[in-house]
This record gives sequence, structure tokens and C-alpha cells, in this order.
Amino acid sequence: MKLASFATHEGPSFGVVQGQSVFDLRKRLDGRYADLKALIVADAFAEAARAVDGGSADYPLAEVTLLPVIPNPEQIFCVGLNYAEHVKETNRETTENPVIFVRVPASQVGSREPMLRPPESTQFDYEGEIAVIIGKGGRRIAEQDAWHHIAGYACYNDGSVRDWQRHTGQWGPGKNFYRTGAFGPWMVTSDEIEANATMTLVTRLNGQEVQRATTEMLIHGIAKQIAYLSTFTPLCAGDVIVTGTPGGVGAKRNPPLFMKAGDVVEVEVDRIGTLSNPIADEV
Amino acid sequence: MKLASFATHEGPSFGVVQGQSVFDLRKRLDGRYADLKALIVADAFAEAARAVDGGSADYPLAEVTLLPVIPNPEQIFCVGLNYAEHVKETNRETTENPVIFVRVPASQVGSREPMLRPPESTQFDYEGEIAVIIGKGGRRIAEQDAWHHIAGYACYNDGSVRDWQRHTGQWGPGKNFYRTGAFGPWMVTSDEIEANATMTLVTRLNGQEVQRATTEMLIHGIAKQIAYLSTFTPLCAGDVIVTGTPGGVGAKRNPPLFMKAGDVVEVEVDRIGTLSNPIADEV
Repeated sequence: MKLASFATHEGPSFGVVQGQSVFDLRKRLDGRYADLKALIVADAFAEAARAVDGGSADYPLAEVTLLPVIPNPEQIFCVGLNYAEHVKETNRETTENPVIFVRVPASQVGSREPMLRPPESTQFDYEGEIAVIIGKGGRRIAEQDAWHHIAGYACYNDGSVRDWQRHTGQWGPGKNFYRTGAFGPWMVTSDEIEANATMTLVTRLNGQEVQRATTEMLIHGIAKQIAYLSTFTPLCAGDVIVTGTPGGVGAKRNPPLFMKAGDVVEVEVDRIGTLSNPIADEV
Repeated sequence: MKLASFATHEGPSFGVVQGQSVFDLRKRLDGRYADLKALIVADAFAEAARAVDGGSADYPLAEVTLLPVIPNPEQIFCVGLNYAEHVKETNRETTENPVIFVRVPASQVGSREPMLRPPESTQFDYEGEIAVIIGKGGRRIAEQDAWHHIAGYACYNDGSVRDWQRHTGQWGPGKNFYRTGAFGPWMVTSDEIEANATMTLVTRLNGQEVQRATTEMLIHGIAKQIAYLSTFTPLCAGDVIVTGTPGGVGAKRNPPLFMKAGDVVEVEVDRIGTLSNPIADEV
């Protein structure tokens, strides 16, 4: 099942995407769940599936505004330096534990919405990634149990303002400019993607492939990330883990390849779909 | 006015603290504001002051459970390496821009609640700080306007699990163990503390003074912090800025001085009050 958060002229909602159609779950479930996070908290995917079974769709996909898959997560943890080629291009070293930083919800947009380059920088870079959305929460989750805590997967563009990322040793500012990251287009529920599945991630800028990797190349795999993060904090339903970007980022190319107004950046994951965003200058 | 979040047997609420008494604002304002953040969003301090004027208190302060001043902020930004003595003891250098990292709400407790040392570490350290709570939100707030965006001030203990902070170059894990930070005991509204006031911060471990500084010693002052943070993200009502810790942290003493079960740690700020927490082992 593909679950998306979206807005129409009636306001924000969430629902199921099938082909080019959207089924509105907030309406169909009589408002019992305020948003997609609430549906995940209630573990109500079976109820959602029944609510769209056999009916006709509510909107064409083209006519809704897609929002970040989870617009209001409690926590968004990003993993840095998690593919060998990217570690190498940044002249860093692999660490025994995952590199963790935090994004805030205001830094995100949905698919098709513009990712904004702020006037403070010309170094706006892409980072294609696979996002994991937590289902059942937990603390100190063992690696072998981690897969049972995943509600689904989505594409993520961890858009980064490189000069602000390097202001100090802590990357937060460059990773949290308003509407610089993208999260979508929807999540594919984990019943459709087996534990430890091999997924292929491709990033394209204006149609040109700039990053490619598979989950087999992750230094710290998804189960280890869940185990590590849940050691220090309780993971909750709807939390987001952004699992790391492969080599090929724009800042490390010669000459550097940064994003500018009019560009289109895509992150495609074979089992999920394609997250596509135009770039616009923030005004 | 001293505003606190607290819980009683009836559940979570918020209110005004006067001496040893608490006035329950959720009740007195007929549930119009769900929590202290909602009161700040609505800019309803005058209404709150009227609601407690002349009445008799609802609870003795000793009988409520104090919660983090804002239990549910959208964003908690912490400033690192912001006093010269602390920069020196960590063998680092002062940076032109503030060092920013993020805490998540689950990492916080209120005053009098135990701060938890996790079983994964014996290196649990204190960091006494002054917290700023944002009132009127904004983006790209100029330094000279910053003071108008502050709802109030509180004490903060940015409790840090040092070995986990140093797992990689990014400090997030060591700064976000569950219930390791403390935020309280209440906020003093900014009408009682003039812009750019000199405040004195003292940290005590088991009654022994271990840190002392004044806001005059901040490398990046509060107005600059607000200007910098709001350049990349919209600051919202209820957001929290934890403004940095002075020299004297436990990890840099010889021998190191870490916190353990049975200890009591206090952060006192002269214009605010004293945040006091016992240390307990997480079980």
C-alpha cells in the first residue's frame, strides 16, 4: 500500500495512492485519524486497506498537493557518511557507530513542491536517500527485531546548504534551512518490502544521473541504525530515519555542481517510486 | 510572572507560580489553552495574569510534579562552546558563528524529577545553562529586534553522555539520551527581565559550586543566537534556545567528575530560580 500526506482545497489530509488516483482516508475513516502519523500510531493499516477496497477514487493524483510523507514527526534522525564512496569523497573516516544529526520538520517539503535555495548561499546540494518510517515504537530494539518496527519506506532528499553546514563542526544549520529537504512522494508499507530488501537508489539532476547505490552498500545498515538510535531515545510511531547518501554529491565534484532555480532533482528508489522537486530561489 | 508546566493526579496542566503556590491556568482559562505553548502562541500573558489576580492558589508547589517548562516545543536548539573557559577546556577554537545542535523533547525532564544515567555509560555530565523561550515567532530576525521575540527565560541542564557524544563528530546521541536534560523550574516572563540583562549562572553538584558565569561572558550573545537560528529556520512560539555552558564541566576536570545515582545537581540563575534534579540510574 502507498500512503501519502496531501492537501486539497479542503485542507490537509492523507490517504492511499493507487496508480494516478488518491483515496482520502481522513474522510473514509470518518476523521478517526487526524493524519498519517495517527494512522500509524493506531496500527490501522488493515482498516485503511478495507476503506479503499472496491471504491472509486476521490482525487486524481495530479490534483493534490503532496506533503512530506509525515508532516509532523516527533523526531527526524539523519545518518551521515554511510556509504564508502561518500566517506571517501569527503576525506573522512568510517566510524564504528553511525553519524547522527537531526532535521526539524520545517526543513521539509513534499514531492513536486519546490525545494528552496536561500538567499544566504549558492551552495545548495542534493543528497538522495532512503527514509524509514517507524511503526511500532520501542527502546533498545535489538537488530534482529528492528524490521518489525518499520511502518514503511520513502525517498528523501537531504538537501544541504554546504557553507552553512561547515560553519562549525556541527552540521545542523546547513541541514535545516526552511523547505530545503524533500520527503516523498509516499511511503510504501513494509508488508510489501521484505526485511533487509535490496533497494536501489538513484539521484538525477535535470535528468542526469548523479548518485547510484544499493542498500547492500550501507556501512551501518537499517537494522543497526534502529538499534543504535533506540539505545538513546525511544523511537515513536511516525519517527523518520534518513539512512544516508551515496557518493556523488555536488560539493565534491570538480567543478562543484550545485542546484539553482529552474533545476529539477529526482530521487528514485526502485521499490518505492520517484521523489521529484523543482528548485526555486527563496524570496 | 513565573509560568510552569506541571502534572497533578488530574493530568498535565500549566499555571502561575507565586511563592510556594501554584495557580492552575488550564482550569482558570476554561481550557482555552491546552498547554503553556498554546498560551504563548496566543500571546495571552495578560489574560493569564488577570486569571490569577486576587484568587487563592490551587495547589502547594510541593505537591505538583513539575514538567519541562515547555514539554512539547517544535524545536530545541542548543549552542555549544559559547563561553571562553569552556572552549579552552575542550581544546577547541572559537568560531565566527555559533555551534548549533538539536535536542529532542524526550530527552528532557522537569525540576525535581530524576535525570537518568543510562546503563550504557558512566560518563554522565552536567552543563548548566540559561534557556530562552521564544514568544513571537519570526524568520531572519535582526539582532536589534531579537529581544521582542523572547517570551521568557528558564534554567537548563544540558546533561551529556560524554562517550556517546564523542562516538562521531556529531554530538546528537550523547545529547539526547532519554530524560538526561532538565528544563525548569519555570520560565520568568521577559517583561520582568530587561533586554540584554546580566544574569549569573551557577551550577552545583551536591552543594559544591562547579560552574559560574554571567551572560556578559557569552561569546555569541542571545540576540545573535536568535538572529543566526532564524536565518535558517522560522522560530516559533515555544521554541527553546539553550544558550551554552560555562567552563567547569565534569569531563574536563582532573580527575573527571561525573554524576551518579544519589547525586543532586542544581542550576541557579539569579533572575529566575533554581533547577534541582536528583540523579538516578535508568532501570
